[in-house]
Amino acid sequence: MESINQEKEDTLTGDCGEWIMPVKDALDALHGRWKIPIIIAVSFGSKRFNEIAREVPGITDKTLSKELKDLEVNQLVSRKVINSFPTRVEYAITDHGRSLKNVMIELRLWGRAHRAKIFE
Amino acid sequence: MESINQEKEDTLTGDCGEWIMPVKDALDALHGRWKIPIIIAVSFGSKRFNEIAREVPGITDKTLSKELKDLEVNQLVSRKVINSFPTRVEYAITDHGRSLKNVMIELRLWGRAHRAKIFE
Repeated sequence: MESINQEKEDTLTGDCGEWIMPVKDALDALHGRWKIPIIIAVSFGSKRFNEIAREVPGITDKTLSKELKDLEVNQLVSRKVINSFPTRVEYAITDHGRSLKNVMIELRLWGRAHRAKIFE
Repeated sequence: MESINQEKEDTLTGDCGEWIMPVKDALDALHGRWKIPIIIAVSFGSKRFNEIAREVPGITDKTLSKELKDLEVNQLVSRKVINSFPTRVEYAITDHGRSLKNVMIELRLWGRAHRAKIFE
């Protein structure tokens, strides 16, 4: 009896489709290895292209360029042209991007647990 | 002053790398559009290959087959051969897969908010 309750606590409730549909909407905006790390990088302050590239290990310039465009379309990151000389371009987190905070917190916790599990 | 506090509340704290590294570990196991929906599908009970394919809209057999293997390697889904005649294969959620529950909850909430935002 106890083990059944334990299992229930960790089990998703409701209808399978009611979970898959909104999660798929989220993943369509966030999918891949790069978008969330890029969002994290700009969460710590507006950054230029090369600054983001340095923060996100392993990303190529071509991929970063494509991912930034996708993130702009989904209103998660905004591109700001700063009227200096020479003109500077910076990428900033939007309010909608900030609303991912709880997703980040849970992914971070789980990422740590997963690393511990896989190397145990 | 108020708007600064508001911003702080929604901002990640600490060091950028301390967020990116564990989140990248998580995404290396979960990346793509398909893995999390597959995990959700088997969270609602063990399923055969074709049953999962029906629950996850748009997935091809080839992709599902590859994703299931990746999920097994990361100990998120287990493959059970059931000794019936004919032999049946079922895929089940593991305890480690169940530990993704909070990630799913936050992705579902955010997916709903994102859909509302993009169509607003």
